[in-house]
Amino acid sequence: MKPSAETMAQAAEALQDALRRLHIPFDAAQFQWQGIVPVQYKEHAGDARGLGWRGVTRYSLGRPPYIEASFALRYFEIAPDGYSSLEKHAHVHLVVVVRGRGRALVGERVFELQPLDIVYVPPLMPHRWVNPYDEPFGFLCTVDAERDKPQPVSDEEWDALRANPETAPYVF
Amino acid sequence: MKPSAETMAQAAEALQDALRRLHIPFDAAQFQWQGIVPVQYKEHAGDARGLGWRGVTRYSLGRPPYIEASFALRYFEIAPDGYSSLEKHAHVHLVVVVRGRGRALVGERVFELQPLDIVYVPPLMPHRWVNPYDEPFGFLCTVDAERDKPQPVSDEEWDALRANPETAPYVF
Repeated sequence: MKPSAETMAQAAEALQDALRRLHIPFDAAQFQWQGIVPVQYKEHAGDARGLGWRGVTRYSLGRPPYIEASFALRYFEIAPDGYSSLEKHAHVHLVVVVRGRGRALVGERVFELQPLDIVYVPPLMPHRWVNPYDEPFGFLCTVDAERDKPQPVSDEEWDALRANPETAPYVF
Repeated sequence: MKPSAETMAQAAEALQDALRRLHIPFDAAQFQWQGIVPVQYKEHAGDARGLGWRGVTRYSLGRPPYIEASFALRYFEIAPDGYSSLEKHAHVHLVVVVRGRGRALVGERVFELQPLDIVYVPPLMPHRWVNPYDEPFGFLCTVDAERDKPQPVSDEEWDALRANPETAPYVF
């Protein structure tokens, strides 16, 4: 479900307030940051092939204009049996796992991930985050603040990913 | 001690290789990333008041040109009884604690930090990271890749921080 404009505005205001306090304490019991409002992934969901997703929550932890920088830091959490869109874009992801275990399809590979593992998603490389486990899977993801929108993979990429036994289970 | 040019070049090459593999596994037993070479903080150490530091190690986890982005991600670890320089700069820090406990002097405040706490250091705000505990204190720190060099705090800032009971113990 696409979050409402009101939800998005509330989340943005809460983030601004939290960053003004300079320290955002983390509540380990709830696995949440004080004053940070989660929103359902994502604003730009599409109906194109592969863009489906399930059980993904996004937390914005810092972005301009609330920080004077050119990057944005987000935390994504994927519920058991959840997955993100299979997508690509020109901007890169640099990811650090901080909760649970999961998998990442990146290009022609599928990586098994555990806490503090790092994943780099280069420009225009197809990728999908998957949680086949019983516990939430969460990761920090830094991006350039100015960035292009995700797009579906091409027909050629789709076919190649389906023909590759490593990636095929995650191409749907 | 300032790291040698050879050490810096080796660390850069290792980072490039690690990012080309897209997945950088984390070794929880060693608290290190596979193929990531730590270097002693920092290249730009100075003799100015407050710029002393002790027991700080830096790991570069991603930066241009090895990632196609305008940000850099580093991991800093501060040994027990260690501390970073008391400094300021125009570029901001967005920090996420991932190991142990520590403290941050940021502006007129000192924050007590624990894992996954976030700290925002706005432009030109004096700051110092301190580990008064018995275990290593480590945090991820994202910055803009293009950024200014750290500078010592001004005389006015030094005096104000020394006069403030909260910050005074960390101003030396």
